[in-house]
Amino acid sequence: MRFRIRPVDTTFYDLFTEAASHLVTGARLLAEMLAEGADQIDVAKRMREAEHAADETTHAIVRRVNSVFVTPFDREDIYSLGSGLDDIMDLMDEVVDMILVYEVKVLPSDLSDQVEVLQRCAELTAAAMPNLQSMKSLQEFWIEVNRLENEGDRNHRRILATIFSGEFKAVEVLKLKDIVEALESAIDGFERVANIVEQIALKES
Amino acid sequence: MRFRIRPVDTTFYDLFTEAASHLVTGARLLAEMLAEGADQIDVAKRMREAEHAADETTHAIVRRVNSVFVTPFDREDIYSLGSGLDDIMDLMDEVVDMILVYEVKVLPSDLSDQVEVLQRCAELTAAAMPNLQSMKSLQEFWIEVNRLENEGDRNHRRILATIFSGEFKAVEVLKLKDIVEALESAIDGFERVANIVEQIALKES
Amino acid sequence: MRFRIRPVDTTFYDLFTEAASHLVTGARLLAEMLAEGADQIDVAKRMREAEHAADETTHAIVRRVNSVFVTPFDREDIYSLGSGLDDIMDLMDEVVDMILVYEVKVLPSDLSDQVEVLQRCAELTAAAMPNLQSMKSLQEFWIEVNRLENEGDRNHRRILATIFSGEFKAVEVLKLKDIVEALESAIDGFERVANIVEQIALKES
Repeated sequence: MRFRIRPVDTTFYDLFTEAASHLVTGARLLAEMLAEGADQIDVAKRMREAEHAADETTHAIVRRVNSVFVTPFDREDIYSLGSGLDDIMDLMDEVVDMILVYEVKVLPSDLSDQVEVLQRCAELTAAAMPNLQSMKSLQEFWIEVNRLENEGDRNHRRILATIFSGEFKAVEVLKLKDIVEALESAIDGFERVANIVEQIALKES
Repeated sequence: MRFRIRPVDTTFYDLFTEAASHLVTGARLLAEMLAEGADQIDVAKRMREAEHAADETTHAIVRRVNSVFVTPFDREDIYSLGSGLDDIMDLMDEVVDMILVYEVKVLPSDLSDQVEVLQRCAELTAAAMPNLQSMKSLQEFWIEVNRLENEGDRNHRRILATIFSGEFKAVEVLKLKDIVEALESAIDGFERVANIVEQIALKES
Repeated sequence: MRFRIRPVDTTFYDLFTEAASHLVTGARLLAEMLAEGADQIDVAKRMREAEHAADETTHAIVRRVNSVFVTPFDREDIYSLGSGLDDIMDLMDEVVDMILVYEVKVLPSDLSDQVEVLQRCAELTAAAMPNLQSMKSLQEFWIEVNRLENEGDRNHRRILATIFSGEFKAVEVLKLKDIVEALESAIDGFERVANIVEQIALKES
């Protein structure tokens, strides 16, 4: 009897890269949604499509982690990373959805600062995913995402102060607060993803 | 020395079925709560009792998973399923509680659509739990729960649009939004339970 | 060949005790924040420092659990307990932050009942952490924390009724509700920690 060495499955790196690329799309659609004169119904439709595509990638990750014999890192970490990425997509989709359903009249202009933070987080994450294979340059990734999350936190506090300044009616405050908090949760989601990546890298080192 | 085969513990199927049957009770009490002329204080009292009964079932599951040597499927899946069912009960209890504590004046009539979705989810789940033993008919279960969750999602968006239409005062909007969101979270909870069941079934297949 | 018995790492007990002591500090700062004539900006600054210190303790726990070979109890339980304690600190910090950022005018006086519950939970938890080593007196701990959580729950309902009584303007209701809910989540966080401790003790017994 001979033990054959089973090659480590590389599909996971591709799937994580795919998942993160949906987030790049999502963040771009968010920026479009906030742009003056945007066709909001069309943007929402495309966001829904991106969210469905992201769902499929997540399902592919879950199916694979449940069916393969050897995984490149702990099954639970794969699962956490997959659902961590998926949660961000759901939050982005929710923001677009709320802008439509709530029929928000005026969006504070500093919302676009948060969307910019999201776009940079998404791009960094998409660039980092392929590096999970070599475990290289990951530290720069999580340090930068943590820095961006701090920036997002400061933006968030400033935006909340604007919303509660007395300038907006109570019902508008209620709507805006939901939207602003979903944006912040999405940024927090990237920090969570970066922490999972950090933990994976630490275990491997 | 001889290895004896330890029979797999079947108590878990009974406990999960019991947990899901509390949810059938909870969903029925929610429907009662919304019915015209309901004795809301009495319904809330019975909901609290149902919630306590559900807590005891959950504790029995946790105690059992921590004390037995052989479990019918992964310990963490048993734990997830148990706490997933328990979370739904907490949310149903919360809805009844909020209606009382907030002294909500007028409830939008389409809330009952969401409660109907919840009742169907609860019944499907209670019917599916015994099938965890044979692993039969589970696919129909999770497909149907996912379909119901999509229906609930559409209801939710419609109800939010109603609440924010300008017809309600800001403080009432605040109350209703909380209630409506807890209903939706409860429906999401069933989807999460269905996903856990799917994952258990996939591992066994 | 000889098996050497590796001594169980006791650092974890110290780290958990340290984490809980940050919560004692946090709860005390919350009480200061609510006191008449408080220098809120200074309290917020000290809360931020306490929160950073707590973060460092959490990171030390995570690093240790990922690097040592033998842990005194299941790795995932260590991780849950560490992040459970950290979540409470985040919520306390959030409360102080919201009071500042929202520029809340009037805080209902019964908020201090909740802060008192938090202080007692924090002290009990700090006293219980060293007992994880001997596994003694832990039952009294989780029973008492569960009792306090019930007390907090009754306070919470009473405070919500006050907030929604019509005495406060809609925007103030919105602010207060957030603050009150974060306080309740912090108390729930202690119950979650007590449940994790119970589960660890049950596994060891």
